[in-house]
Amino acid sequence: MEESSESPLVLLHRPPSLVFMDELLGRNYRILDINTSSDPLPIFLSRHAASARAFVNIARLPVTAELLSLLPNLEIIICTSVGVDHIDLAECKRRGVAVTNAGDAFSEDVADSAVGLLISVLRRVPAADRYVRSGNWKKFGDYQLGSKVSGKRVGIVGLGSIGSFIAKRLEPFGCIISYNSRSQKQSIPYKYYSDVLSLAANNDVLILCCSLNDETRHIVNREVMESLGKDGVIINVGRGGLIDEKEMVKCLVQGVIGGAGLDVFENEPEVPVELFGLDNVVLSPHSAMITPGSFKNVEDVAFANLKAFFSNQPLISPVQFD
Amino acid sequence: MEESSESPLVLLHRPPSLVFMDELLGRNYRILDINTSSDPLPIFLSRHAASARAFVNIARLPVTAELLSLLPNLEIIICTSVGVDHIDLAECKRRGVAVTNAGDAFSEDVADSAVGLLISVLRRVPAADRYVRSGNWKKFGDYQLGSKVSGKRVGIVGLGSIGSFIAKRLEPFGCIISYNSRSQKQSIPYKYYSDVLSLAANNDVLILCCSLNDETRHIVNREVMESLGKDGVIINVGRGGLIDEKEMVKCLVQGVIGGAGLDVFENEPEVPVELFGLDNVVLSPHSAMITPGSFKNVEDVAFANLKAFFSNQPLISPVQFD
Repeated sequence: MEESSESPLVLLHRPPSLVFMDELLGRNYRILDINTSSDPLPIFLSRHAASARAFVNIARLPVTAELLSLLPNLEIIICTSVGVDHIDLAECKRRGVAVTNAGDAFSEDVADSAVGLLISVLRRVPAADRYVRSGNWKKFGDYQLGSKVSGKRVGIVGLGSIGSFIAKRLEPFGCIISYNSRSQKQSIPYKYYSDVLSLAANNDVLILCCSLNDETRHIVNREVMESLGKDGVIINVGRGGLIDEKEMVKCLVQGVIGGAGLDVFENEPEVPVELFGLDNVVLSPHSAMITPGSFKNVEDVAFANLKAFFSNQPLISPVQFD
Repeated sequence: MEESSESPLVLLHRPPSLVFMDELLGRNYRILDINTSSDPLPIFLSRHAASARAFVNIARLPVTAELLSLLPNLEIIICTSVGVDHIDLAECKRRGVAVTNAGDAFSEDVADSAVGLLISVLRRVPAADRYVRSGNWKKFGDYQLGSKVSGKRVGIVGLGSIGSFIAKRLEPFGCIISYNSRSQKQSIPYKYYSDVLSLAANNDVLILCCSLNDETRHIVNREVMESLGKDGVIINVGRGGLIDEKEMVKCLVQGVIGGAGLDVFENEPEVPVELFGLDNVVLSPHSAMITPGSFKNVEDVAFANLKAFFSNQPLISPVQFD
């Protein structure tokens, strides 16, 4: 496709620091980069974006009904994240706007992080690292021992591509895997629990990697944590809103659960300060999802979706509307 | 076996805080606990231990030729560690004293730790945890991204039971495994390198889990680190002496290698202070080897060796003399 006034107009939003997809996009489409203007967003959009047919949303800009109303010709939103809880999907459906996500591009990195957080919590890796760095090993001797990883019963909430990768990685640790998801998966050998409460009751660890929506918001509440129990550990690489964070803080402080590894929080980058003093908690700044080694994958998926859309081909990683 | 003056005398040394094997040992043998005396060790041994036939060495007491000369009737040393570099094996061989180690009892825990350290270094888990705890996420925004775990080329030095467990755990991460050991193993699918220098040159990660002896001391020297290269990572769950620590510190500070996850150090609990400020290093206080969940395994192996010895049965986990 040659660049010309006939090329489709693609709206782009990305973190200012991120040079990402520039070359690919610029070669094939006319690009309208939100970052190039200092106008308030609604004014900028109504002045310049009325003819935009696609929106490549790299910086997770919330797409509300109001924002959509300023983009009357929009046909597709290309997200470079896996979760699309920043998009008003109901309004997209109503307007006939397709939405795509990052597909599997992040799955390996997120699964790697989830396993890393799990071992880090159980074996207290960051706490032990702090102990050595502060000189306490020399001063006070051995650090408290952690908890065994091998053989733990691990319940995965959401057995999509990330959850499956996590399960596959934990199998050779001798972990016993079970899962909860909207429906039981065929040809999956792991035990299925139809609700998170019984999943928690029958496991030592809960790993959250499902999407956040009205059904899954606060899917881990006080009752689930009590059911998981005092040695139980929660790993969250999904979204902060999956857990009732206030209750989780209480449960961690009171010893209702044993520990947590958290990459996501309800109100990022706010993190409850009560967690900062806890050695049974590992905190991660929403960085599970990617490494530079995966940028290329994400670019590829996003660009392939865009190209498929404008060629009337099936989308690579469409988000299903309920 | 009834306790009587005819029961064999077993010398015991253990960390004072550790109630370990007491019940098992006391039921079957006369126990001489080094901790019960305030006499200097040589005096205590020559006065009371001359008839001891076995020594259960839980606290990693160095067993020198001099110490052995004070135990003329000693026939076996039962160690509860995997590494036995604290034992003068040549002198044991000369005197016909058998030595046993912990066998496989620790292998799962050490392998779990090695994988945890690897993910922690590559994905910067403790550094990111510090970043969040210090409030920097809110103040300065996103933390630097880590490096991808999946697909890394991992060279394992020492493919015994720990090394094999590590390899098995890293396979579903899509890591490409190769190894170095004294000799090539039959029926092992991984590529073999006969020397550590070429192993380093062909891998992104080196994991050290071989025993420390005259051949392996400083097996990772400056040349090996230069060969591993600026993005290369070293994980050491073996012994500190496997690495030339002074050179490693220089290589980490100068960026000759990319990072390190270290559970062991040359002069524990001394840790080079230059490492305390580095975010590409994860420090662990020689705690990879065990969790409370494995104590029972270690007790079982140690006691089984002792029982086998006094019943003239084959030892469970004898250390081979060269």
